[in-house]
Amino acid sequence: MATIDIARRVYDHSWKLDPIVRSLLDTDFYKLLMLQMIWGLYRDVRADFTLINRSHSVRIADEIDERELREQLDHARSLRFAKKEMIWLAGNSFYGRHQIFAPDFLAWLVDFQLPEYDLRREDGQFVLNFSGPWTHTTMWEIPALAIVNELRSRAAMKGMGRFDLDVLYARAKAKLWEKVERLRKLPELRISDFGTRRRHSFLWQRWCVEALKEGLGEALLGTSNVLLAMDTDLEAIGTNAHELPMVLAALADTDEERLTAPYRVLEAWERYYGGNLLVVLPDAFGTTSFLKRAPDWVADWTGFRPDSKPPIEGGEEIYTWWRLRGRDPREKLLVFSDALDVEAIESTYHYFQGRVRMSFGWGTNLTNDFEGCAPGPRDGLKAASLVCKVSSANGRPAVKLSDNPQKATGEEAEIARYERLFEFEEPSRAKVA
Amino acid sequence: MATIDIARRVYDHSWKLDPIVRSLLDTDFYKLLMLQMIWGLYRDVRADFTLINRSHSVRIADEIDERELREQLDHARSLRFAKKEMIWLAGNSFYGRHQIFAPDFLAWLVDFQLPEYDLRREDGQFVLNFSGPWTHTTMWEIPALAIVNELRSRAAMKGMGRFDLDVLYARAKAKLWEKVERLRKLPELRISDFGTRRRHSFLWQRWCVEALKEGLGEALLGTSNVLLAMDTDLEAIGTNAHELPMVLAALADTDEERLTAPYRVLEAWERYYGGNLLVVLPDAFGTTSFLKRAPDWVADWTGFRPDSKPPIEGGEEIYTWWRLRGRDPREKLLVFSDALDVEAIESTYHYFQGRVRMSFGWGTNLTNDFEGCAPGPRDGLKAASLVCKVSSANGRPAVKLSDNPQKATGEEAEIARYERLFEFEEPSRAKVA
Repeated sequence: MATIDIARRVYDHSWKLDPIVRSLLDTDFYKLLMLQMIWGLYRDVRADFTLINRSHSVRIADEIDERELREQLDHARSLRFAKKEMIWLAGNSFYGRHQIFAPDFLAWLVDFQLPEYDLRREDGQFVLNFSGPWTHTTMWEIPALAIVNELRSRAAMKGMGRFDLDVLYARAKAKLWEKVERLRKLPELRISDFGTRRRHSFLWQRWCVEALKEGLGEALLGTSNVLLAMDTDLEAIGTNAHELPMVLAALADTDEERLTAPYRVLEAWERYYGGNLLVVLPDAFGTTSFLKRAPDWVADWTGFRPDSKPPIEGGEEIYTWWRLRGRDPREKLLVFSDALDVEAIESTYHYFQGRVRMSFGWGTNLTNDFEGCAPGPRDGLKAASLVCKVSSANGRPAVKLSDNPQKATGEEAEIARYERLFEFEEPSRAKVA
Repeated sequence: MATIDIARRVYDHSWKLDPIVRSLLDTDFYKLLMLQMIWGLYRDVRADFTLINRSHSVRIADEIDERELREQLDHARSLRFAKKEMIWLAGNSFYGRHQIFAPDFLAWLVDFQLPEYDLRREDGQFVLNFSGPWTHTTMWEIPALAIVNELRSRAAMKGMGRFDLDVLYARAKAKLWEKVERLRKLPELRISDFGTRRRHSFLWQRWCVEALKEGLGEALLGTSNVLLAMDTDLEAIGTNAHELPMVLAALADTDEERLTAPYRVLEAWERYYGGNLLVVLPDAFGTTSFLKRAPDWVADWTGFRPDSKPPIEGGEEIYTWWRLRGRDPREKLLVFSDALDVEAIESTYHYFQGRVRMSFGWGTNLTNDFEGCAPGPRDGLKAASLVCKVSSANGRPAVKLSDNPQKATGEEAEIARYERLFEFEEPSRAKVA
């Protein structure tokens, strides 16, 4: 006796929009931590963000309907923090600390709204820019990426039958569970979901996080997604991102000031946060350069997050630096978060086990790995390398070098200028691969 | 906005029974074909059927609650053919023939009800017997097996969490789809679902049949399950079974009469059916004996269904016999239906391709392969070798030898008598394996 909920069926028929982002908490935790600091210290800075598709062969504007993209972005702009979300932000403890968000910041957050966007098509790509106060544009990064990625998934699945979809998700679930079973063999693993921005869809990310929770138990530290952290009673995970040194470097009036930007960011951060939130992201203008010039107190921070070198090479460089600075790496933390798949997690885990504390921030390969899952070829289901980066601050161009030239962002002349200034060492091709 | 159908939720809470068999059409098609003949020719014969568990190590009565088993059997007894089912049986064409079921047979079928059963526990097993007119007891075979098998599945899954179940079925779906993709590479494959009796559950069988329909297209001839054939617009597939020669041999007054029983079955069958329904099941008392004594007209039948020798060996024996009898095997059909997995289908297909027409009846390995699918070990999910066989006719013991001594049924002394009479050749162990 199959009973059909007629009202629901009719409601489903009459959908105008199936919103992708339904809450302002559906973002990465580091955005809120950074926002509090930006709001506190850089309230008057204007910062522009730009969507960048590093996968040039993927012509996103041919895959996605512009009207649908606008509807989703408009819907995200209609969101406000809900009352229960504000109460949770105020009442929950993060990284073991109560009231990490100050009452005056939260009072400001109540009225927060995503600012306007500027969208046009150009040569098969969308040019999507967010201009305005840094306190607002910064918050577009994650929802913009999640929206574009999920619209790509939806487009790729358009026309698939009920059965094809069933097989697609059955395979993706089976595939993820194979990974969980492999990771379960690493007894001291500490891992988090970092997959919001590149996720296949919100519902799929939620399934993946629940799978990790069920399968890995204590090994799962939490999720970077604040909404999922709240809904599934997991820890919200994340610290800071490249945009902080990028903006401070862009605002610098002299090269000398620019060279100190990465460390001034850390000084400011330390005034706001402590303990396990003291994780250095060293690669904005090259890790080697960063370590060479770093004041000694940087070595007192809890850990580093190498983000653009191969994990063992990147971790080893920091490990050696700690030893040179007279610190015991066994008391330090390395957070690996770049391009992780199960093989990379396993090899990195075994390489550093016992030498340093480790955790892994698992992104694209967790929440958007549908390779081999579709009954036929579906290129659109392959995750594209999309980012949303700050492009200028108070009208001055912003630059990111990172340790991988393919991940550099900014105008070419500016990149070259930064490379000279920070004495950027071009890594060999072999190292990048 | 998740809307919950409150009425449905309450209804789900208040379930007394989730019936396994919900229609008398939820049986194998050959049962109906045989029933028409039994009703026409052997209306007064009494035949007893018995559930036999060949997997002695599986203690079914310890796995399944007796009360639940009784409730399911009682529910099956409450069923009658529905009006639309009768109309479909009368109006549909089967094997290309209209009105395969005569009006007087259908008129009798309207009031059909499964007869009483006799159930008790003995040493960890259920002793389940069906006594009465052959026209009624024969119809218990499939529902009884389906009920016991699905109750085993349910027992094995009891206590599994929502997530464990999700992974279980995701893996089983992915696993089946790998098989579909392999089978798709056999361009002239003809295959049918024969998995009703051993299925994991009704819903799972339905999913499997839909998967084959979607994935194999024309290569799927149909399903032996009459209900699924009706509901999914597939052909109902099946011809005849061992019970026919078993009963006729049991009823024989002399050894001479007993030796002719398999051929008298075919003569009777031919009066009822023709064309592609003329498929010989030769192994009731040993294929070699059957072929040796077969009248020449048997070689005129459309095909054979070797059912208890390894497929290549069994097929080759019949192939050679056709040639000895001067028939062209390329015009003949071999239906393989015993213990098929994908490897066996592939090797048999390649072996006989171009030499003889073939089709495959795929059973347990299609509808009940959950090996490696459960997150933890779940022995109860492994299909047991359960059968439901005629044990006596008009009080005389019935025997099946088959080509595989492990599949023989009947009293030991009777089996020995039949082996002598039919000059049964014990196959070497190597051949059986």
